[in-house]
Amino acid sequence: MNPKAQVIHSIKAYSTILGVPDAVDLAIIIVRKELVLDVVKQCGEKGVKGLVIITAGFSEVGKEGKKRELEVLKVVNDYGMNMIGPNCFGIVNTNPEISLNATFGKTYPKQGRIGFITQSGAMGEAIMNTAKELGIGFSVVASIGNKADISSNDILDYFKDDPNTDIILMYLENFGNPRKFTEIAREITQTKPIVVVKSGRTTLGAKAASSHTGALAGLDIGVDALFEQTGVMRVETVEELFDVASALSNQPIPKGNSVCVVTNAGGPGILATDALINYGMEMPSLSPTTVKKLKKFISAEASFSNPMDMVAGAGAKEFKLTLDAVKNDKRYDSIIPIFVPPVTINQLEVAQHIYESVKDCDKTVLACFMGAGEGSEGIKFLKEHNIPVYIFPEAIAKTLATISKHQKWLNKPKGKFRKFKVDEASVQKILDKAVKNKEKSIIGEDAIDILKAYGIAAAEYSYASSVKDAQNISSSIGYPVVMKINTPQILHKTEIGGVKVDLRTNDEVKKAFNALKKNVSPLKKGESFSVSIQKMIVGGVETVMGMTIDPSFGPLIMFGLGGIYVEIMKDVSFKIHPLTDVQAKDMVRSMKAFPLLNGFRGAPAVDIKMLEDTLLRLSQLIKDFDTFQEIDINPFIVSPERELCKAVDARFILK
Amino acid sequence: MNPKAQVIHSIKAYSTILGVPDAVDLAIIIVRKELVLDVVKQCGEKGVKGLVIITAGFSEVGKEGKKRELEVLKVVNDYGMNMIGPNCFGIVNTNPEISLNATFGKTYPKQGRIGFITQSGAMGEAIMNTAKELGIGFSVVASIGNKADISSNDILDYFKDDPNTDIILMYLENFGNPRKFTEIAREITQTKPIVVVKSGRTTLGAKAASSHTGALAGLDIGVDALFEQTGVMRVETVEELFDVASALSNQPIPKGNSVCVVTNAGGPGILATDALINYGMEMPSLSPTTVKKLKKFISAEASFSNPMDMVAGAGAKEFKLTLDAVKNDKRYDSIIPIFVPPVTINQLEVAQHIYESVKDCDKTVLACFMGAGEGSEGIKFLKEHNIPVYIFPEAIAKTLATISKHQKWLNKPKGKFRKFKVDEASVQKILDKAVKNKEKSIIGEDAIDILKAYGIAAAEYSYASSVKDAQNISSSIGYPVVMKINTPQILHKTEIGGVKVDLRTNDEVKKAFNALKKNVSPLKKGESFSVSIQKMIVGGVETVMGMTIDPSFGPLIMFGLGGIYVEIMKDVSFKIHPLTDVQAKDMVRSMKAFPLLNGFRGAPAVDIKMLEDTLLRLSQLIKDFDTFQEIDINPFIVSPERELCKAVDARFILK
Repeated sequence: MNPKAQVIHSIKAYSTILGVPDAVDLAIIIVRKELVLDVVKQCGEKGVKGLVIITAGFSEVGKEGKKRELEVLKVVNDYGMNMIGPNCFGIVNTNPEISLNATFGKTYPKQGRIGFITQSGAMGEAIMNTAKELGIGFSVVASIGNKADISSNDILDYFKDDPNTDIILMYLENFGNPRKFTEIAREITQTKPIVVVKSGRTTLGAKAASSHTGALAGLDIGVDALFEQTGVMRVETVEELFDVASALSNQPIPKGNSVCVVTNAGGPGILATDALINYGMEMPSLSPTTVKKLKKFISAEASFSNPMDMVAGAGAKEFKLTLDAVKNDKRYDSIIPIFVPPVTINQLEVAQHIYESVKDCDKTVLACFMGAGEGSEGIKFLKEHNIPVYIFPEAIAKTLATISKHQKWLNKPKGKFRKFKVDEASVQKILDKAVKNKEKSIIGEDAIDILKAYGIAAAEYSYASSVKDAQNISSSIGYPVVMKINTPQILHKTEIGGVKVDLRTNDEVKKAFNALKKNVSPLKKGESFSVSIQKMIVGGVETVMGMTIDPSFGPLIMFGLGGIYVEIMKDVSFKIHPLTDVQAKDMVRSMKAFPLLNGFRGAPAVDIKMLEDTLLRLSQLIKDFDTFQEIDINPFIVSPERELCKAVDARFILK
Repeated sequence: MNPKAQVIHSIKAYSTILGVPDAVDLAIIIVRKELVLDVVKQCGEKGVKGLVIITAGFSEVGKEGKKRELEVLKVVNDYGMNMIGPNCFGIVNTNPEISLNATFGKTYPKQGRIGFITQSGAMGEAIMNTAKELGIGFSVVASIGNKADISSNDILDYFKDDPNTDIILMYLENFGNPRKFTEIAREITQTKPIVVVKSGRTTLGAKAASSHTGALAGLDIGVDALFEQTGVMRVETVEELFDVASALSNQPIPKGNSVCVVTNAGGPGILATDALINYGMEMPSLSPTTVKKLKKFISAEASFSNPMDMVAGAGAKEFKLTLDAVKNDKRYDSIIPIFVPPVTINQLEVAQHIYESVKDCDKTVLACFMGAGEGSEGIKFLKEHNIPVYIFPEAIAKTLATISKHQKWLNKPKGKFRKFKVDEASVQKILDKAVKNKEKSIIGEDAIDILKAYGIAAAEYSYASSVKDAQNISSSIGYPVVMKINTPQILHKTEIGGVKVDLRTNDEVKKAFNALKKNVSPLKKGESFSVSIQKMIVGGVETVMGMTIDPSFGPLIMFGLGGIYVEIMKDVSFKIHPLTDVQAKDMVRSMKAFPLLNGFRGAPAVDIKMLEDTLLRLSQLIKDFDTFQEIDINPFIVSPERELCKAVDARFILK
């Protein structure tokens, strides 16, 4: 369409779409932003089903643009059309029967089995260009722009059933509807891998939050938790996106972590080993059978270990025979042939022999031709025969680690939601009271009672407002005890010296009481001083658990080891609520300080099952009540004996 | 030379070097390994000064080869020749007056100002090939092979004064003489940056060691400490080696951490920001003056923040004007122009305008042309004009972080060695006694006395072999006390429950004594049970310090936070002995758990100066006595009050 021209590039042009004699499936709109609304209306009248609006100047430029976008969207909905954009780079479909390039880019990608969704037009163009150079093909490329109508979730949904798409790549800057994403992604990743570069980690700025859990859940934690829980592979850079995509679109996902490196050069072999071990892969030595086979034709000066360094004289024949032996060695899931081309050896021939050997092999084969030079015939040959070639061995190591981790995720039991018998009514009563009193948070005894109602063990509290009381209580519950200032206003009691632990005698209780009293003076008029007293749990390990609500991901559940581990070491785990039993297990076991729970220095392990159950009970509490903004259970003390595992303090911040 | 041919490639050949009529400076030997010795002898007789022996089959293939190598080396030394190799890839010198390519590779590198040393011939070839593709030039490339005569240290020494070499790259697998490396490298890095890929991290295997310090000093710690202390930049991958080399050979080292990103595309700008912040760089916003300048010509829809996103319409003129403004903004040390080429904009013109703007600028400029396509004219132009161009913004971020860190190192005060007044004689006496008694280690009172002799504060010990004694001692030193089993055979007392802390009453002392006695029973015949008693230091923080001898680097000094921080979190710092005052400072401050020392949660900071002095005193002790194989001071308790800072236990393992 063009209001002025009658013919453009030898194709008949119409002044408006209404003049087109045939039916129109898809309209691509690149008119000035002021004209978009009218053109969309005309499309609606004409009965067009789909729109791609490339024109920019909508919600991305502020309030006025947002208004313009909503007007367009209304028309789109009124006519029952679907719209991609506005402010997008367009879409591409390489299916030969469709062969559509509705973008303003100069690159038409190679046909392939990768579906690609990008939230940035510029990234879309950059990625398409680079992919073409690397020989990576796409089924569909969709730049979704402002996502006013069709979102990345809709496109994901399309890819789910698209027979032409086996792998999905995404460049994302934010999530529109992460819960829907979770639902769709969790299903897709069972059969089609999703690889994502998510940017915008550091631009959000730290979120203001008043609880520990909230403060720790900064920035990108929800995103990482989401990807982990849905089996989406997150890569750090666009380069890694390509590295992983090359592997996935040409080779099977490795069944496990075990790799054999076959090389004609020592240095690169060592570099590969360093990188593989660094990324958590394993390099078992060659099986005796393999060594026996290799000794028949490989010079005795070679290493016969892993990396298998065939030494510099090795050529095409040696690669073929060595790979023949290694591909039948059951110890390995992946093979990395590394070739540094000496001037005397024909690269293409080496490539052909590598291919000949591994073409029918069920292991993952990623090759490295280091310093092979631009336009190497060998590299070209392997790429054409579905063996990805990398310039540096480190990239292969990282790629293998990423996709092996995905296989591990696929193998993992899916996990179940547990349902505990709990006392909802008691919690409701406490909440009602808090609402009635216009409380913003619930602490102290009420907080402990909420936990108990959900079967979360908690220490008993007693209160004393005199030394005499304190001593009586302490003697009756039994020494040692912990004494804390009982003032709702003071949330971080430790910092002001408001906690005295391990008091063992009447005398120590007296001293502690007086010291605490001194710390909070002067009291305001009408306030009276009191302390809480609890039995001290000896020999336990402090843990922290909690919940905070992420504006896009909803409740995040946190677990960590108490005090300094959480606050300085940041040794915490976050998952998106609700938790399955498998996830609760993962949370506890993913702590760097997990050995401390699992029997450190010959100590007996703490009751880890109890810890996992407590996390699941917390998740159930969050599910049953929509009133909590943040929850801290800090500390939750764990010990080898179940009856000593207890929450000592808790705090609920209400919405 | 060739025994058979008279002419090779139209050049006259001689049957032996003795037949050559003129003097010979350098001989390159590629004969069969069995003939090398004779040929070297002939070279010696001829008066040849230098040899490059490319032939392999020497010490790298075992005992017999080693013998062959020593025979050759003897001849080389007898005639006063210098030899590179054997088993090397050769050397290259691109100085037009020399123009020497004595390698068997197919690539002759571009002339440049980078000197390159490689320990692997294959890596040498691979790196030369890749460098050529990237347009990186070399002054000298030296493959040092088995380093039988000339080592990487000798070549470093040559580069130090070579007017054609400004930057040094190295590929290393191991160190021959790390102490000499330290000496040379420390001097060179003041004026010429050294960038190293060191491989072989994971192949060494964990070293057997009996002390904490030894066990922690596994693998690569000495190498990292060495590079850090000499100002050598270590990069992880060959790719990073190139990235850093491109920056260093074309641009100044940035004066600081502050970066401005100027982009025509949002997505890559965000990716760059993520990566920069992630690598510890800073991105302050544009100064008001800069914003004012920019508003004159940049569309109001642009961001006017950092990253400065000029939006997609921006072309050559906008890049020029924006960079003109930013290059004069004093907030920045580096600028990253990012360009994603839209189909409508001429890449070459953008490149020319970028160059025009920044050519006379003293900031570091590293450009990113994302998806510009193979053979982009723009990229070619910038590279020819000394502006490195990267495909992905993440590589720029990592590169800037590496070279900025180097600048920080250069700016750092050099540090002094402190000399304390100590009592060497007392230590000598204790050592003499141990040697006389054939002790393998010194523990208990003697160990504490060694510390005291070097002015390292240590807790007093008393010993008790009955409950009565224990109670008397405890009352007299004052409660609370710590009680430990006093059995030399039991090194890890905590694991067997051999330590009781915080005993506050006679009754608790009695219970503890009896419990400990039960833990070590049955005693062997003739052994009597006793415990040590120390005053407990309340409110201190446990630290650990020690020394272990690395087979190649000599004594490594270790510092960490006690117990779990060291053992599970691996939060430790190692430096190569001897320590300067600046290094002692760095060690303490580089701890992840440093906040715990520096006033955590409103607590007063511990006496950090005292801690640093203690590390320096330990270093002096190691310098004065060559008898220690390993030292553990564990724990060394620090507290805000100097008189409470004390070593509680120490152990010296003798050589």
